Amino acid sequence: MDTSGKTISCRAAVAWAVGQPLSLEEVQVEPPRAGEVRIKMASTSICGTDARVLKGWLPLPFPLIPGHEGAGTVESVGPGVTSVRSGDLVLTLIIPQCRECQACLHPRGSFCDKQDVLPSSGLMLDGSSRFFCRGHSIYHSFRASTFTEFTVVPEISVAKIPAAAPLDRVCLLSCGVPTGYGAAVHAAQVTPGSTCVVIGLGGVGSAIILGCKVSGAARIIGVDINEDKFPGARKLGVTDVLNPGRLSRPLQEEIQEMTGGGADFVFEAAGLPETLLAAWESCHKSYGTCLAVGLSPDDSKLVLNATPIITGHTLKGVCLGGYKTRDCVPQMVSDYLQGRLDIDPLVTHQLPFAKLQEAMELYRAGKPIRCVLLF
Amino acid sequence: MDTSGKTISCRAAVAWAVGQPLSLEEVQVEPPRAGEVRIKMASTSICGTDARVLKGWLPLPFPLIPGHEGAGTVESVGPGVTSVRSGDLVLTLIIPQCRECQACLHPRGSFCDKQDVLPSSGLMLDGSSRFFCRGHSIYHSFRASTFTEFTVVPEISVAKIPAAAPLDRVCLLSCGVPTGYGAAVHAAQVTPGSTCVVIGLGGVGSAIILGCKVSGAARIIGVDINEDKFPGARKLGVTDVLNPGRLSRPLQEEIQEMTGGGADFVFEAAGLPETLLAAWESCHKSYGTCLAVGLSPDDSKLVLNATPIITGHTLKGVCLGGYKTRDCVPQMVSDYLQGRLDIDPLVTHQLPFAKLQEAMELYRAGKPIRCVLLF
Repeated sequence: MDTSGKTISCRAAVAWAVGQPLSLEEVQVEPPRAGEVRIKMASTSICGTDARVLKGWLPLPFPLIPGHEGAGTVESVGPGVTSVRSGDLVLTLIIPQCRECQACLHPRGSFCDKQDVLPSSGLMLDGSSRFFCRGHSIYHSFRASTFTEFTVVPEISVAKIPAAAPLDRVCLLSCGVPTGYGAAVHAAQVTPGSTCVVIGLGGVGSAIILGCKVSGAARIIGVDINEDKFPGARKLGVTDVLNPGRLSRPLQEEIQEMTGGGADFVFEAAGLPETLLAAWESCHKSYGTCLAVGLSPDDSKLVLNATPIITGHTLKGVCLGGYKTRDCVPQMVSDYLQGRLDIDPLVTHQLPFAKLQEAMELYRAGKPIRCVLLF
Repeated sequence: MDTSGKTISCRAAVAWAVGQPLSLEEVQVEPPRAGEVRIKMASTSICGTDARVLKGWLPLPFPLIPGHEGAGTVESVGPGVTSVRSGDLVLTLIIPQCRECQACLHPRGSFCDKQDVLPSSGLMLDGSSRFFCRGHSIYHSFRASTFTEFTVVPEISVAKIPAAAPLDRVCLLSCGVPTGYGAAVHAAQVTPGSTCVVIGLGGVGSAIILGCKVSGAARIIGVDINEDKFPGARKLGVTDVLNPGRLSRPLQEEIQEMTGGGADFVFEAAGLPETLLAAWESCHKSYGTCLAVGLSPDDSKLVLNATPIITGHTLKGVCLGGYKTRDCVPQMVSDYLQGRLDIDPLVTHQLPFAKLQEAMELYRAGKPIRCVLLF
């Protein structure tokens, strides 16, 4: 049945308010308008940022359909869409690439002006929503909203990927893997022989490890309060593990001593200002670089001692690996298909979308690296 | 008269306590011990950091002999010194290069472990002083102490320079010029066509302008609360000037608007946490880099909003241009001698050392870019 131009009714997870459990609902998904794409989702994975949205740690308007890391097939496109067509395989992108704004046009820029993360309107570019449920307009999250059988996103937030891509895997390349891998190989440009620290060993942290390893890091220190993460992290390339909860002194002091003065590259993937401070203070004061990869809660502060900043270290924020997303994400999918980037170990759990609640429980219990939900 | 091996009595400026005026005294300068060099000073210039030391904004022990930006001739060397000998022209270096510590051995490191800036002991590497006055041991400042006819410094804090170097000029290449110029060309690697902002238009800020200009910056916005600095800054290459005291809104908002979203490179040379925050927030959020060049007062804090750090901008501290000092400073002197680096416009005042008080008054009144004192 040709659904193009029609509103589609389908199942989606709706978060009606901060702190409430997700509710599986029947929603109406309007057709894509000019410059928009409607996607039939094939898979979505759960990222730490989704859990934070639901806890209200980021200022998104409710009710909303969460999820942002997804893969699917284009169902239909709105007027003016030229880069994808019905039937194309695509990934959703939390950071678009409009190719027109100052960030997109700048050689080093990537945080497209048309993103809807900071701040989040919860609406499409024209200021309206495409989701309705029980008579209510439902907000989008980050103009992605992947916890639904069908979603609508801007064309600039879509990466077209090869037809051979396995959609049950490459959804990780929509956000988590480029975020971590790109932080290491692109933003930090980890150097051979270097010492790296990765704080937070979830999906993003695991991708950071992959990036450090491929860049030739000699030592990768993995940090997490959940020691269940350690065996998997070691398999990916971590050489040392630390549980801050078991240390008798602050993490930064431990790392300063372990590394004889601080690490070359310290990645913060936990998204907390206190671990970000620890990351900064774990860097070598002269040549260390601290990569802020995790999104700290709204209104949180990073308080640095101002005087010693001049000693030479660097604090660098990085979102989605600092990649120009539509240019780079498809290339990562090709790299995966050609065996140059192995993301399979990161998919530790798979469940049908109907078991979203169970998947969220697994996530909260710290079990998966990534749990992929299949539609 | 051969003075080697003997204590020398000479004139020096002694700061007896925080906040007290400098006192010109007769001091005794002991001979250099192993690995040390005694220098007959020819010139010294006044840097903002000296004034901060005297105000107690940095935790140095008193009484001390201030000054760190100096040029002179080696009078004698202690045992084991091989890189310079009596009669060599040299510059004092606030950041040594021992060539043995982790920072010196690292390709990107420069903040040598044997520096005495953060923290400051006020003593030579063996834990003792070479200065005495009226029966008191007098502390060194940063193991440089150039406000004296003779000083003793570690060999690793000495840059040997060409015999043709004019000592009444090149003292600026001891600290201020490499600090600013290197921040632009070496640490930030300012790119052609970029927009730069320089906050604080004194000696260091002026050297930053030189570095931005030579790197091909298209626009250089100079910021100071002292508008007397503007004509000189324009001559060096500044294209726009801003006095924050005359703005009706915060500096960062003004710069965000002037640049359509933030600058590529923002240099903070005022050494205050509030201007450092303004510098950070004046960067383009996706690709801007904030260079912390000025030394903020002891115990001051830089408080950043943690959430938006991930958008992609960079905060980088830089001390003495991030240069490996003994390798790079002599090269800058050669560049000056060969006309590739023009520091002459930065020497706006010259006075005999005996008029140090007058020079400090000029500095406090914001008159010079650099005032050189001649011995």
